[in-house]
Parts: sequence; structure tokens; C-alpha cells
Amino acid sequence: MAKVTGFEGIVAAETDISLVDGENGRLVYRGYLAKDLAIEQSYEEVAYLLWNGQLPEQDELEQLHMRLANLRNIPEYICEIIDLLPLSISMMGVLQTAVAALGDAAGVAWPPTLQQAERLTAVLPSIVAYRYRKLNGLPIVEPDAQLGHAANYLYMLTGQLPEESHSKALNAYLILGMEHGMNASTFAGRVILSTQSDMNAAVCGAIGAMKGPLHGGAPYEVIAMLEEIGSKDRAEPWMRNALEHGARLMGFGHRIYKTNDPRAEALRIVTLQMTGEDPSFELAIHVENTAIRLLEEFKPGRRLFTNVEFYAAAILRAVQISPDLFTPTFTLGRIVGWTAHILEQASVNRIFRPESVYTGPMPAADLSVI
Amino acid sequence: MAKVTGFEGIVAAETDISLVDGENGRLVYRGYLAKDLAIEQSYEEVAYLLWNGQLPEQDELEQLHMRLANLRNIPEYICEIIDLLPLSISMMGVLQTAVAALGDAAGVAWPPTLQQAERLTAVLPSIVAYRYRKLNGLPIVEPDAQLGHAANYLYMLTGQLPEESHSKALNAYLILGMEHGMNASTFAGRVILSTQSDMNAAVCGAIGAMKGPLHGGAPYEVIAMLEEIGSKDRAEPWMRNALEHGARLMGFGHRIYKTNDPRAEALRIVTLQMTGEDPSFELAIHVENTAIRLLEEFKPGRRLFTNVEFYAAAILRAVQISPDLFTPTFTLGRIVGWTAHILEQASVNRIFRPESVYTGPMPAADLSVI
Repeated sequence: MAKVTGFEGIVAAETDISLVDGENGRLVYRGYLAKDLAIEQSYEEVAYLLWNGQLPEQDELEQLHMRLANLRNIPEYICEIIDLLPLSISMMGVLQTAVAALGDAAGVAWPPTLQQAERLTAVLPSIVAYRYRKLNGLPIVEPDAQLGHAANYLYMLTGQLPEESHSKALNAYLILGMEHGMNASTFAGRVILSTQSDMNAAVCGAIGAMKGPLHGGAPYEVIAMLEEIGSKDRAEPWMRNALEHGARLMGFGHRIYKTNDPRAEALRIVTLQMTGEDPSFELAIHVENTAIRLLEEFKPGRRLFTNVEFYAAAILRAVQISPDLFTPTFTLGRIVGWTAHILEQASVNRIFRPESVYTGPMPAADLSVI
Repeated sequence: MAKVTGFEGIVAAETDISLVDGENGRLVYRGYLAKDLAIEQSYEEVAYLLWNGQLPEQDELEQLHMRLANLRNIPEYICEIIDLLPLSISMMGVLQTAVAALGDAAGVAWPPTLQQAERLTAVLPSIVAYRYRKLNGLPIVEPDAQLGHAANYLYMLTGQLPEESHSKALNAYLILGMEHGMNASTFAGRVILSTQSDMNAAVCGAIGAMKGPLHGGAPYEVIAMLEEIGSKDRAEPWMRNALEHGARLMGFGHRIYKTNDPRAEALRIVTLQMTGEDPSFELAIHVENTAIRLLEEFKPGRRLFTNVEFYAAAILRAVQISPDLFTPTFTLGRIVGWTAHILEQASVNRIFRPESVYTGPMPAADLSVI
């Protein structure tokens, strides 16, 4: 049977955008540690950095905020299209449809532009919130141009001005999800763009890749664990019982990061800063500490570090984003990395045309070869 | 500046589906020469072959025809969505939107199925024809279950039962476009699927790649040449004049095929069979013969063989498909190869995760590395 390669160790591109350094537990965005950016900067600032290669000056940041705020409204025909989609279609399917429908209607063509990147980044949260509130029979909440990207998303979802700790935690989560080297969705987007296709066509494909649970899978098991534990006093007995029965504790260990996952570290710091403001944050810190202690007891020397899924689940749960929206919310971060890679691909473009090895039968009487 | 690789010579997968043998001018589909299949078999027969690995028995063929005929109708909500799309959106954008909107609403999930492949293959021509007639203010033509795939597409586009020579020529064109190894769109589809995403998400990405002119570009220059030549007696003076002024003759020479392009050969044979039935076919043959003679005179030893674009343009022009529909019509062939590859990828799946090499700046004061 035909085999596939997976491309481990095969270099698809050089990139100025990010370094995933698993050995040293580092994730670098354009020369900055993503961990620091997530704690100190806003979504807009880091988006600017990933797109432009440097952090914005104050006036550049204000202009970007204004441009994004102005691009948050969903065109009317897109709302009508979303309303026509069957209830059963997933939110990722809704996003894929909307991005395709926005497509080249707005003059999207080669080469892709930063303006197109900003437009998609600005409008995707509105699309998620619009569909979410429609599905739940709630009135639509118009975007609030005063709010930053993360806060406005929470506001459009809930209809209430979010607590600052929630905005800050979500802001950090989105920043840490923005970019992670040549992952499958980013790679798919670059392959599509390489035919001189357009920004929206490439993002549409990237959303398709993110849809797959091997890539954009939501950390349902971590959430389930946190829900079942429920309160600090139940953490140790619950996890001790799980480990005694041979179960894995979800949210620990990572394929690439063999030391601290820098995304988990950053989210832990943000979570620690918030523990006074919401018992969910406190529970997450307590569960992590207990898990690390118990893992050392049950699996000594395994060095199972907390991974990003643990704190992603903890934060998204704390800010009360429905588990259905985890992969779409991840997408609202990653759209920045996708569009940055699409712009980079366009600047040095070469069509991706790998080979395949034919393992099927040969023609019986092959008269065409002399 | 960061570089990209293009992946020349890098094997992305083994495949039982096709062999592109440029050295020997062969294109093999599952052990059969595509050239022979295009002349002798129907669209349905070759689709069955590419999906299932063998040609159908008579009853299997009849059942496939019936299944595809039953799947031609566009769900009502998809028609409404198409009607909402701005006039300016391209037909490839329409297809991408419709495939996304059909998406997981129909229970599309992992693993992809042959039934899903058949559904997309059956409905795409209806979508193209629906949009085309709407844009042109024409009444919609319902599919005719008596007609084969190629003939029904022409019928839905024109509202008239097509001449048999036209159906046969289009049938051959579609078969030769079905499959061509690890091209950019097929590759994009496999990368997307590799995350355990779904059939429609992967096809949606493949359509996005096909949209780009480096991949799915229509042979506008060949059509323009045929239009300008117009009649047999003008062929030699027109081309001689072009060559004397240093112009290239479009439709000759190919990146991979250094001998006859087997797709052009097959389409020439089909075209030759039709010369009595339509002067457009006769013109194409005459232009090709004249071009080959003149190229030998002007560029002796260059061995510029006729490529598939020449006969694609000639046939699509002869069967009166509007140049706007060339890339979408190519897609109606290639959907079979895409879906066959998506099914093959699923059967041996491994997520595509290539590497990138970071060429950007490093953090100034990097305290995270001990």
C-alpha cells in the first residue's frame, strides 16, 4: 500500500516570522520571545509585529487599532449566507464558507496585501460571534470600536463588557496561538498561495486544515478534567485516583517541547496574575501544581511538562468561552500567522510541486514507449 | 530574504493513482494509459477506475451513473447562497464557497468516503452551470439523468442537447484533466486532509490552489491565437508573421514532457475523429500541423511538441465553453483525482508537518536559555 511521508525534517521554507525551538523551550516571533509578548503586549501590537517585522510606534498602533475596528463589521450578504447554512455545519465550516464568500469579490487577487490580512483578521471574530449568538437565539451584538481585539470578541460573544482579567487572559492566549512555524495549516496556506492564488483562497484552505482534530483539536479532555475536579480540594484525590488506574493526565507532555512549553509558561504567568480575580484561575494553578507533583511521584524522571493545551483549556474555561468555540477561537489567533506567512510566501514565491512515487500497476501492453 | 523551496524532487507520497512519466511521454492512471482511456472510455468509467483501482463491470457502471445522476441536484440553500454572492466573485470563488457550504452539514467527517467523492463530483457541474446561466440571465436547466457526465454538463450550460462530437471531445478533455500526480492542488488537498480534516475542507483548499494562474490558468493566449487566425488559410501567414517578429507560439513545449505530451496526443486523436463534424476541429488540426512545420523551420532541433493547453483551448473553443469557464471546467475533471488522492491519503494518513528554517532576528537579551 502506498505510503506517505509526513515531511518530518524536510524544510518547506525559510521564514523570518517565527522560530519553534523545542530543545530550549523557546518560541520566537520576529526576534521577540512569544512568552514576553503575550504578557506585555496587545493582540494588535503582536499582529503588527508578525506582519511588519517590528513592533509599532504609538501612532502606528493607534492607526492599526482604528483600521481593524473599522473592518469588524460583517458585510450584509455574508450574514445572509451564514443564516442559510444548516444548523449542523460546524463553526469552522462557517468560517471557511464566509472566507470563501468574501473572496475575490472584494478585488482579492495576486499579490496578497497587508490590507487583506487586516480585513480577515478584523472580521473573523465578528463572524464567530454572529453565528454563535444566532445559534443560541440571542440578539446580535455590534462590535465596539473602543475595545481592543480580544475584549471586543468577548463583548460580541457575551453582550457584556468583559472583566479586564478575562480580556487580558484571552489576549495572551490569542497571541500565543498566532504563530508556530510550518504547522499543517500554515503550510497548506503557503502551498495554495504558491500557485499565485489569492489571500482568501489560501486562508480558506488553512481553515480547512485547522479543522482536523490532529491539528486544531480542542483540549476537551483537559476541560473535562477541570470540570470533574471542580474545586481545589478535589484536585489531589481525583488525579491520584486517575494515575493509580493507569490513566494519563491530559495537558502534560509535548511532541516538540522537551522542556517547558513556552506557551504554557506564559499562560501560567498570566493566570497567576489573575488568581485573585476569578476562582477558575486559582483552580488551574492548583491543579497544575498538584499534577506536576503527582506525575513526579507516579512517573519519576519522565519530565512531563505542562503543555499549552492545559492552560488553553484553563483560560478559555475561565473566560467562559464555550468548548464548541475552542478551535474557532484558536483560529482567531492563528489567522495572524497564516496571513504573515502568505505575505512572506508571495514575496519569494515559487510554486510547490513535490513529486510522488507511483506504486500502482503498469500498463499491460505499453505500446507508447518505443 | 527568506527563501522557499518549491519541493522539486522531494517525494510527498507514494501513490497507486497515477504516474506522470515525462521522459517517455506517458501518463498512467491505475495501470492504464490515460490517452487510451480518454479515447475509449466515459467520464464515469475513468472516475470509477481512479477511485476504485479497476474499471467497472457493466452493472457497476450503470449503478455509478445512476448514483451520480441522482446527486446532480444542488441543495436549495446552496442555490440561495450562490445567488447572494456578488457578481464580481470568480467562478472558482463560487465553487469554493459552495463546497465549504455543503461541508460538514451533510455529516462529512473523518474518514472521507467514496460517497462524498461521488457527491462532489456529481454536483460541481450543476453549480458551474447554475451560476453561469444566472449571470447571463438565462433560465436554469435541470440536469438530465439520461445523459452522461460530460454531455449533461454541456446540456446544463447551453440548454440544448449537445452534438455527440462535442460530448465526446469534452469527455476526453475531462478525463485527461482528472489526474496528474502530486500537482499543487492535489498536494494542498492531501495536506489539509492529513490533519484528519474532512473531504469538503480538503477539496475546498484544492480549489483554492487551482484558482492560481500558475496552476489552473486558462490557455487564453492559445484561444486568442485561434480566434485571430480564424480560418485555415490564415494560419500560415499569421504564425509566420508572429515567429518572424520573435513571438512565441503558445501551446507548444512543456516543463515535464520532453517528448509528446500524452494528453495533447489523445486530444489530437479525438479531434481528428471529429474533423468532419465541426470546422473548429479542422482548424485546430490545421493550425497544429502548420505550427509544428514552422517551429521546425524557425527553431530547428528545439523539439517543441504540442502541449495539452493547445488542444484544451481548441476543444473547449469548439464545444463553445466560454473562456471564463476554462479553469472551472478543468476543475470538473480534476475533482476526480483530488478525491481519489484524499481517499488514498486517509487510508495511510500521517500529518504533514514539514520544518522551516528561521532566518529572522534572535531575541536581544535571551534569558530563557540557560
